[in-house]
Amino acid sequence: MPNDVAKLYEDVCRYARRTAVFTSIETVLFWDERTQMPAAGAEHRAEQCTLMAGLLHKRWVDPKFGEQLAELTAVPISSISSDAGVNIRRLKRQHDKKVKLPQSLVEELARTAVLGQQSWQEARQKDDFPAFRPLLERMFELKRQQAEALGYSQCAYDALLDEYEPEELTANVRPVLAGLREQLVPLAAEIQHCGRQPNASILHGKFPRNVQDALGRRAATAIGFEFARGRLDVTAHPFCASLGPNDHRITTRYDEQFFNAALFGILHEAGHGLYEQGLPPENYGLPLGEAVSLGIHESQSRLWENLVGRSRAFWTHFYPQAQQSFPEALGGVPIDDFYFAINDVRPSLIRIEADEATYNLHILVRFELEQALLDGDLKVSDLPAAWNEKYQKYLGITPPNDRLGVLQDVHWSAGLVGYFPTYSLGNLYAAQFFAQAEAELGGLAEQFARGEFHALLGWLREKIHRHGQRYTAAELVQRVTGRPLSARPLIEHLRAKMGALYRIG
Amino acid sequence: MPNDVAKLYEDVCRYARRTAVFTSIETVLFWDERTQMPAAGAEHRAEQCTLMAGLLHKRWVDPKFGEQLAELTAVPISSISSDAGVNIRRLKRQHDKKVKLPQSLVEELARTAVLGQQSWQEARQKDDFPAFRPLLERMFELKRQQAEALGYSQCAYDALLDEYEPEELTANVRPVLAGLREQLVPLAAEIQHCGRQPNASILHGKFPRNVQDALGRRAATAIGFEFARGRLDVTAHPFCASLGPNDHRITTRYDEQFFNAALFGILHEAGHGLYEQGLPPENYGLPLGEAVSLGIHESQSRLWENLVGRSRAFWTHFYPQAQQSFPEALGGVPIDDFYFAINDVRPSLIRIEADEATYNLHILVRFELEQALLDGDLKVSDLPAAWNEKYQKYLGITPPNDRLGVLQDVHWSAGLVGYFPTYSLGNLYAAQFFAQAEAELGGLAEQFARGEFHALLGWLREKIHRHGQRYTAAELVQRVTGRPLSARPLIEHLRAKMGALYRIG
Repeated sequence: MPNDVAKLYEDVCRYARRTAVFTSIETVLFWDERTQMPAAGAEHRAEQCTLMAGLLHKRWVDPKFGEQLAELTAVPISSISSDAGVNIRRLKRQHDKKVKLPQSLVEELARTAVLGQQSWQEARQKDDFPAFRPLLERMFELKRQQAEALGYSQCAYDALLDEYEPEELTANVRPVLAGLREQLVPLAAEIQHCGRQPNASILHGKFPRNVQDALGRRAATAIGFEFARGRLDVTAHPFCASLGPNDHRITTRYDEQFFNAALFGILHEAGHGLYEQGLPPENYGLPLGEAVSLGIHESQSRLWENLVGRSRAFWTHFYPQAQQSFPEALGGVPIDDFYFAINDVRPSLIRIEADEATYNLHILVRFELEQALLDGDLKVSDLPAAWNEKYQKYLGITPPNDRLGVLQDVHWSAGLVGYFPTYSLGNLYAAQFFAQAEAELGGLAEQFARGEFHALLGWLREKIHRHGQRYTAAELVQRVTGRPLSARPLIEHLRAKMGALYRIG
Repeated sequence: MPNDVAKLYEDVCRYARRTAVFTSIETVLFWDERTQMPAAGAEHRAEQCTLMAGLLHKRWVDPKFGEQLAELTAVPISSISSDAGVNIRRLKRQHDKKVKLPQSLVEELARTAVLGQQSWQEARQKDDFPAFRPLLERMFELKRQQAEALGYSQCAYDALLDEYEPEELTANVRPVLAGLREQLVPLAAEIQHCGRQPNASILHGKFPRNVQDALGRRAATAIGFEFARGRLDVTAHPFCASLGPNDHRITTRYDEQFFNAALFGILHEAGHGLYEQGLPPENYGLPLGEAVSLGIHESQSRLWENLVGRSRAFWTHFYPQAQQSFPEALGGVPIDDFYFAINDVRPSLIRIEADEATYNLHILVRFELEQALLDGDLKVSDLPAAWNEKYQKYLGITPPNDRLGVLQDVHWSAGLVGYFPTYSLGNLYAAQFFAQAEAELGGLAEQFARGEFHALLGWLREKIHRHGQRYTAAELVQRVTGRPLSARPLIEHLRAKMGALYRIG
């Protein structure tokens, strides 16, 4: 790079890194709120978060930063290294998006999200959707304004999806998820009517919290999560948060009468944590040091939770430890019964409790409904009926009330519209990556059965983690697997696994 | 207030409150660092703290804020409410002080403090004072520059003391502490030679951590600490931190072989917490909602730890619970033996382990030495010898090495010069306040023996907590007790208590 360009690039990077440090302070506030803060501290925490959000928005839309990015973007590409090119392009993209949002809309969205979550919590508690309706209408109105402000070439939903899955388009996602639905609905029905089902009661027994904690830590450590630069804590709605390049914190919740919640939750969050711990620390605060998208992030959590954690091979290694940990509950249970039970496929009403196969049907319901709400094809007042109809159609069951139906998720009340499909994208990416890893590495199951996970982790580090945002999600999938995103690997995985367990297909 | 003045005052208050919210974010970072953060996160946390410190300094020295304060200060006092007057005066004082510090000095002090703590830790570990010397010389050089920049009328030390004990003067503190020394040195000697001493081994036994935790929480709750807007956590160097007006967190450390550390530590930090919880929340972020000084803060912790927590009456109520909690260690120990043991007076080398009577002698050593270092009357290279000499003179013992001597405290390495005397001021204020409370309320011991502490807490709330910074420490003491600060109440308390225990005087 010419000297003056190098200097300019350095300035931009320094500024971006500082912004990232402020963002990480916001993450400290968030993590503390969810794991430590006494409830009485909530009001003040909201003030702290609002101030930080305002400060961050200001930094992103800073005119000087924008000018510097514009100047760098105008430099002939040949005189910029590819690394610098990635950072400049992605920072400029983010800056340009933030600039399009009027400060008043940003504030109104933040305020409505806080009010929305309160309103949603009350409505859910009382099973009173009408009480929540005005807020939800307002939120979708604001999200429409946000989409219009951000702009889009094909549909308003694109603008929102882009917040979570940058450069992805609804038109690409729709057919993939529709294809998934076409395969999953009959698969779920087949399983329901095959006459076989596991003894799920195995997983309900006596699972002391401290023993679950110890086993969970051992499992997370085994797959590679570094506790020397991380933590595991307890929360109501588990998440993974990075408070710094060497401070990655996962969370879980314990049910002393149910095995699955904590253990698979820990594997899931540790999967997120492995991605974060695998990002190149020297690029911390720059796009090359950050995760590609929520979908790619979710692919890492789902891969470790489901493709690894719910495999027969994983438990070949871990089941003896689990039996030793919970002699009363599992001591007399054969491994195959346990393995079948943790893969119990059963249409259910609650997304976060859904199994590996039907989970995506829950997402489809939301993906389709939020598009219709945004486009105005569906009125908020008609949402509960539409919700129930889709559950009946895709899962064969109808929620008995809105609490177990449309009021179950926090997302819409918090303004997270366009977020849901990233969960399914994550499942799809996960299956596609995993199939590729198996094809390249071979013998993964044998390794898992010996408690060895480093080859898989090394492959993920090499193929995905170390690149940060060098590629978009679509580019990454193409590069890593040689093919665009497809529902096939997931369907094949589920067909093979459930076919064997349920003796179908 | 005239309308335009009211509007200006409102602006200033809004700005100050926002600054306080940012300060509370810094506190979240600090609390997390000391209680939760994995060690690997330290480097990034330093970056976060540096950014926040810079942001806060910028806010304090903001020229517009300064102009507004100047404008308000010029308004005739009659047209300003007394509340507003206090806030304006104290905010202006703080602003004027911050403005005097060149940004470069602020940054150099922050950097040297970080380096200093590293250097100190290494030196302490290796008992290598010479390795620490250059850093300490640099730090005292910077503190001299700071004092010169801030300005002072009598001596440079005044400028530094004012950071922790606003509006207090060295010339006032010196004779009070000297008077204390004149009484304490002979008292400690008398106790040493009286021939009586408690069986201190009582307190070394089996004290399981979770049982200590439960008893500590019960004790803190009993004296009035509200856990609904607080927490208790574990740390290496206990502290109390307010993360918001309804989020006050105390910390302790557990020694499973020693009773005192956690329990008295919890009472001490809960004392700080009670003060914070008693500040008027409606004035949060303004001087009227903030603690007067470190000395007054310490008076609250010492009052609950020593005047209450080490009293015979307190244990009349709590000892049966302690015996039940630790049947093996305390089951067979009579209360009077226990009470004598927790009041064991014995010259020792380590300040933070010192007893109620000799503690202030440790402070005197530091108070005298840091003045001499600042004034250049003592060279850093001569510090270890001067330290040992004073320990011999005041406490009758000489540290066998610098690790147990001059290298024991973190303060100087962190730039905390002028901080130590606030510990002794706290002890003095505590005794003076407590004597006054007893004179006004009467029968405190009888109440404690019944497990009742609300009358004392109510008195502290009424007389001290609710006023925030309405009065300086000196004004507050005068107002509350009708007399200026004096060493007499503390000496009388110690003479009476130790006289009875050691059968002297």
